[in-house]
Amino acid sequence: MSYGKLLGAGTAVALVIATAGFAGSHAVKSSNATVAARHNQMQMVGYHIGVLGAVAKGEMAYDAAMVEAAAKNLAALATMERATLWAEGTEQGAADLSRAKAEIWQEPDAFAAKFKALEEASLAMVGAADAAAVGAAMGPLGGACKGCHEQFRGPKIE
Amino acid sequence: MSYGKLLGAGTAVALVIATAGFAGSHAVKSSNATVAARHNQMQMVGYHIGVLGAVAKGEMAYDAAMVEAAAKNLAALATMERATLWAEGTEQGAADLSRAKAEIWQEPDAFAAKFKALEEASLAMVGAADAAAVGAAMGPLGGACKGCHEQFRGPKIE
Repeated sequence: MSYGKLLGAGTAVALVIATAGFAGSHAVKSSNATVAARHNQMQMVGYHIGVLGAVAKGEMAYDAAMVEAAAKNLAALATMERATLWAEGTEQGAADLSRAKAEIWQEPDAFAAKFKALEEASLAMVGAADAAAVGAAMGPLGGACKGCHEQFRGPKIE
Repeated sequence: MSYGKLLGAGTAVALVIATAGFAGSHAVKSSNATVAARHNQMQMVGYHIGVLGAVAKGEMAYDAAMVEAAAKNLAALATMERATLWAEGTEQGAADLSRAKAEIWQEPDAFAAKFKALEEASLAMVGAADAAAVGAAMGPLGGACKGCHEQFRGPKIE
């Protein structure tokens, strides 16, 4: 059993994630434990999308086990139980560094559907047979991120 | 559907996690994306153990759905695919802020068994019927954390 020889020191992944502006936007940790845990969840999503993106762009060698692991971890992150991570009272304005819109708690079914879309886009990546197939599956994956952020994420905190 | 009324602003949880010294030790983010993702994973573990610990101590009201969500999320975190998160070349000394011992890659089956222990201790928490039952299940959960850290986590980084 071998854990990911291909990632090495993770330079390519760091590059991809930094370019996406994700790591930077969460450089400061929320004083609210629930919000901090959500940011951890989102950063793990960003990391795995970074891995897949690097494979799609040819910045990281295609490896079937690595792609499948990334896809499955994304699905696991998408299906996390929301009771602990999306506790009421942690919307933007109420909790430090939160960008969660109040609509998350007002429209829980619509919010759940967004995570379902992420789960499905992630599972569609399982079995991608080469870098081109990974690239083709990146669109729906990015679309799932965007779809949720547009509806349920508030403005950037300066 | 309601997302965790009981956590409120998460003050009790923040307190528990801070007391455990976990949040503080990861205040600085690794420049290595893989290590940062692992820290996110461990922080999510710490958060959910904090939730359960707060229930056990009576600092947070017992709520069956919340306890089950925390336990299931812990199990999901324990069963994350390791290919992406434990990439070779990210041991302590080789990657910024990593405390992962080289033994992780030398003894992968023993390492996998530690996560299996965390999964089992987490699933044993599902169905805990009151705060006392949560408390009783905390021991094995803490033991799973400790068992892995003692064998596979290197010295604290000053």
